[in-house]
Amino acid sequence: MPCRVTFLPHEIEIEVAPGTSIIQAALDARVHINASCGGEGVCGKCRVRIEEGAVEGGVSEKLSAEDVAQGYRLACQAFVTGDCRVRIPVESALDTGVLARRPPPRRTARMQRFDFEQLKEQGLFLAPVEKTYLEIPPPSAQDNQPDVSRLIGYLTRERGEHRLEVDLPVIRKLPAVLREAGFRVTATLVRPVREDGRTRLINVQPGDTTRSGFAVAIDVGTTTVCGELIDLATGATLAEHADFNAQISYGEDVISRIVYAEKPGGLERLQEVVVGTLNAILKKLIRRSGVDPEDIATIALAGNTTMTQLLLRIDPRPLRRAPYVPAASIYPPFKARDVGLKVGDHVTALVYPCVSSYVGGDIVAGVMGSGLYRSEALTLFLDVGTNAEIVIGNRDWLVCAACSAGPAFEGGGIRFGMRAARGAIEEVLVDPVTLEPMIVTIGRVRPKGICGSGLISAVAVLFETGVIDSRGKFDPALRTPRIREADGCREYVIAWREETQIERDITLSEIDIENLIRAKGAIYSGCMTLLGEVGLGVGDIERIILAGGFGSYIDLEKAMAIGLLPEIDPARVTYLGNGSLLGAKMASLTNRVRRDVVAVVRRMTNFELSETPSYMDNYIAALFLPHTDIDRFPRVKARLAARRGETREEPGNGPPLRT
Amino acid sequence: MPCRVTFLPHEIEIEVAPGTSIIQAALDARVHINASCGGEGVCGKCRVRIEEGAVEGGVSEKLSAEDVAQGYRLACQAFVTGDCRVRIPVESALDTGVLARRPPPRRTARMQRFDFEQLKEQGLFLAPVEKTYLEIPPPSAQDNQPDVSRLIGYLTRERGEHRLEVDLPVIRKLPAVLREAGFRVTATLVRPVREDGRTRLINVQPGDTTRSGFAVAIDVGTTTVCGELIDLATGATLAEHADFNAQISYGEDVISRIVYAEKPGGLERLQEVVVGTLNAILKKLIRRSGVDPEDIATIALAGNTTMTQLLLRIDPRPLRRAPYVPAASIYPPFKARDVGLKVGDHVTALVYPCVSSYVGGDIVAGVMGSGLYRSEALTLFLDVGTNAEIVIGNRDWLVCAACSAGPAFEGGGIRFGMRAARGAIEEVLVDPVTLEPMIVTIGRVRPKGICGSGLISAVAVLFETGVIDSRGKFDPALRTPRIREADGCREYVIAWREETQIERDITLSEIDIENLIRAKGAIYSGCMTLLGEVGLGVGDIERIILAGGFGSYIDLEKAMAIGLLPEIDPARVTYLGNGSLLGAKMASLTNRVRRDVVAVVRRMTNFELSETPSYMDNYIAALFLPHTDIDRFPRVKARLAARRGETREEPGNGPPLRT
Repeated sequence: MPCRVTFLPHEIEIEVAPGTSIIQAALDARVHINASCGGEGVCGKCRVRIEEGAVEGGVSEKLSAEDVAQGYRLACQAFVTGDCRVRIPVESALDTGVLARRPPPRRTARMQRFDFEQLKEQGLFLAPVEKTYLEIPPPSAQDNQPDVSRLIGYLTRERGEHRLEVDLPVIRKLPAVLREAGFRVTATLVRPVREDGRTRLINVQPGDTTRSGFAVAIDVGTTTVCGELIDLATGATLAEHADFNAQISYGEDVISRIVYAEKPGGLERLQEVVVGTLNAILKKLIRRSGVDPEDIATIALAGNTTMTQLLLRIDPRPLRRAPYVPAASIYPPFKARDVGLKVGDHVTALVYPCVSSYVGGDIVAGVMGSGLYRSEALTLFLDVGTNAEIVIGNRDWLVCAACSAGPAFEGGGIRFGMRAARGAIEEVLVDPVTLEPMIVTIGRVRPKGICGSGLISAVAVLFETGVIDSRGKFDPALRTPRIREADGCREYVIAWREETQIERDITLSEIDIENLIRAKGAIYSGCMTLLGEVGLGVGDIERIILAGGFGSYIDLEKAMAIGLLPEIDPARVTYLGNGSLLGAKMASLTNRVRRDVVAVVRRMTNFELSETPSYMDNYIAALFLPHTDIDRFPRVKARLAARRGETREEPGNGPPLRT
Repeated sequence: MPCRVTFLPHEIEIEVAPGTSIIQAALDARVHINASCGGEGVCGKCRVRIEEGAVEGGVSEKLSAEDVAQGYRLACQAFVTGDCRVRIPVESALDTGVLARRPPPRRTARMQRFDFEQLKEQGLFLAPVEKTYLEIPPPSAQDNQPDVSRLIGYLTRERGEHRLEVDLPVIRKLPAVLREAGFRVTATLVRPVREDGRTRLINVQPGDTTRSGFAVAIDVGTTTVCGELIDLATGATLAEHADFNAQISYGEDVISRIVYAEKPGGLERLQEVVVGTLNAILKKLIRRSGVDPEDIATIALAGNTTMTQLLLRIDPRPLRRAPYVPAASIYPPFKARDVGLKVGDHVTALVYPCVSSYVGGDIVAGVMGSGLYRSEALTLFLDVGTNAEIVIGNRDWLVCAACSAGPAFEGGGIRFGMRAARGAIEEVLVDPVTLEPMIVTIGRVRPKGICGSGLISAVAVLFETGVIDSRGKFDPALRTPRIREADGCREYVIAWREETQIERDITLSEIDIENLIRAKGAIYSGCMTLLGEVGLGVGDIERIILAGGFGSYIDLEKAMAIGLLPEIDPARVTYLGNGSLLGAKMASLTNRVRRDVVAVVRRMTNFELSETPSYMDNYIAALFLPHTDIDRFPRVKARLAARRGETREEPGNGPPLRT
């Protein structure tokens, strides 16, 4: 049951889950509380007074016994347990009313959940694997036909199966299994993906194992490999495990991996190494779920084009050289053992098809997993990382492109940038009056740096409070120790040295902001170029799907405020999570997805942005906050206008240090 | 040009090829010349006088200078170079006229030759593999589709190919091959066996290699493995090589191999070992033919059921236990590499289907290779070894059975029996008057023992000359040092100790003869039982096909004389040679055979003779020379009657030593 938190003196209410910290509730309500230690409770700046209701914690040496007795707590250490009223003392919030009325509440995208039952209801379920228990009459002197003939004959007669293909490994084990089990066995049948295909008999097991049929779905990421072990009967995930792709030792990104693969033995080494990671994950999944490895029938894999080619030991050389040609789009199913996966020799593996060198199987998997390919609504699908992949379309058509956003969103090229890990500043508010920041870090510990969502948050708030202009430059009129010049470049101090874990001031400079603007400009202009190529505009986008780790924590309004995302109703944005893994899971659960993906991948028209003349124009226009053409962002425009109006109407509330 | 040899004093003429020895010409003409050293020239008994015409050789220390000057030569050492007249002196041939008039000339079966052009004319040619040279437009910035898509698109557009499947190994090599070869490559397409199947793209090679397409056909025998490397365009055999199956170290026959396979690790060991033999043969074939191993597209294999299962590492245990169940009949094609064959990873291997535990892929291959399955004539197909396999039928129906003939035809269970190797007596004549033998050995060296065809020859001649009766017992009335009793058993001395390589008399005893009678009885009764099961009799057989090493040297009239084969016109008997290898070759050359074999093997109704009640009756009736019912062998009956008549009419010509 949610708890209602009312912040005084503004009487701003918000509902949060029990256990939410007061500072998080304030962030969500856009109520400013000074805080610069990231939530670890060491700066003591976030004193609030609990006037009604109960909270837990928040007592600190930073507070006197008298303070505590009066109801003072540190907002970052105090957690809501029921409805409460929280007063923000004047020292913790100078004129926060102005702030509180302006920005909309923080809105992250709705998570898209996987629902196996829904899949069935939608008629999208075509079992890829079926098990059937057989009590076969044993041979006799009068009937000594071969074991395989006996088995197939029985399946034909008693189960209506026909046109069966039998794999050699099944023939190898059949004589022993039939006799050990008294001719009572379970046959595993793999249904054809194509309608004109044949059912394959891939395994026989002694006794009745029909209740135990499993699949493994794996997202082979450049950085991280994630696997799930799935019950084919229920769609339930019985175990999941993720680990770094051991190829990381050979290069952080796909380009450096390709460079390594070009060395003698490099390709073979990278293949071995990623298979090692996959095998470790398989082992964990099997141990955690406690299933019999013999009951695993199929493996579905998805990865970007480079990861796919490296996994299959296919020379990736042409991927990084114009005209950027991948080896294949659709891959044939193969024996999992043939690439070195340690599973039963009956297990067939499937990799997602790739569209182009930089729109790979991970994106196709996301398109399948999200249901985009079946959607009526015109959808923008976005997977942001070093490369951002963009898909636009619906069930009738699909276009896609990859753009090199640069590593800014992963903390690269930003002086204090870092990955989204413990100690990374993930959200920033700035008091428009004092220009003091309110920051929250991942893990609520003292900050070490700033991650992608923190950057977006910081730049958005600095822009909307007028600290930086639409070019990302600091307002020279502002006077505060937080804004200073270093090495001929202005910067904003987000956290003072003593508040950090790194014993240095954490800052955000104009160069950092420029890098972020370039990154968001690349993505936005990629979207615009694709839309333009099909004769559409931003207004035509009915839905946005965000995929990848980046999308989960992103504050949608802020992402739109900086012009990273086109401005649409945040309710129309959904977050897919690991779309690659979801797609792999879908492919392992239903042949319908395996069948449809062939048509989908043929329908996905790839644009090489570097070869699309309009891209450069779009890019240059996007190198502003939020964009050269502010009319594309009416909500941002309105907020900026409101700020200017308020500043004009209430000059007493203007920044006190403004000259 | 054949040479005419006229033997005097009988004026018996025969045409032989130049280079034939005089003794061989005499054997073929059924003219008796005393000879007991097998043709090595040491006994000096085969003196003849060349009265006209030229021969080469035959001069020996056994002949005086005067003899030589008068034209005397040793018949076993003298070779015909043109027409000649040869007088057999009285000391070399006592009353040979009688002999010469009686037995029919030696007739071995006509060899059935493989004719690729005929195959085409008969509409039986469906290329299983096709190569096609492609000049593909290279990718560009405007057209950077994946390499596989580009290749398939080109094949579709320019060659009308459709529904192609591409193997993973092709995808692996494609990027490098395309670029190294400037996008000028040769694609190897494997056509589907089934009409509803898909064409598979199994290889791409740089440049134009369309003229180089090869297949390998291998007969995996229990004793010997034979391979041929075949040009797919012409059907020509470019190299052939045979070697012992290295499994021999683990047991001579299939039963002892199965026993070994039942030991821990035994199956794996036997599989490795036979693959080792196959790899050595492949290496030889490649070296001898000089072809590029990359140009080998397919391997077709045929072997008996045990050899097939061991090669594929399938537990053979049930094969030797009632009710004798093989693992499978039809095997799926598999990657040659997957069983350890050292060929390109594009090479698919195919093994012939098996009918039952003892009618295996070698026999099915023989049925396909001989064309029996397309024949209108009711045919008896016989492959004689330790096990004899029998197939009866035509294009409408086929029945088959295996019978355990025992090893007599391979020299087993016969005191001086041996395989058909150098020094084995392969033909025996006996002078009906003197009872002296005329023998010829393989390699024309001094005898070491007697092989299957020698045994048949000896027993037939002893029977037809009345030395033994229809039960195989020696006529007690005969008196000659050649017939004696040893260890309570009568025997005939074929070669005296000093004429042999083994320093012992080579003999044929009543026990030996009994064993031979049992072996031939098993085979004949197998044929009769099969015929009986389908309501037919000997008279319905229109054609006999002999397969296996045994059939090549067999004297048909003698095989019929002892009742091994039903008596039909020898002109209707053909010799197939290695039917297993021929069938494998056919399967590698045309998909029509691969397609038809599935229906053929389903049509082959197997009879377990031990489960067929009439078999024992037939067997007992066949334990006579030639059979209990002599009327089934009218030609033998007539010859026996003629001999008795002659004996009566010309008492002076009777055996002088007969009491």
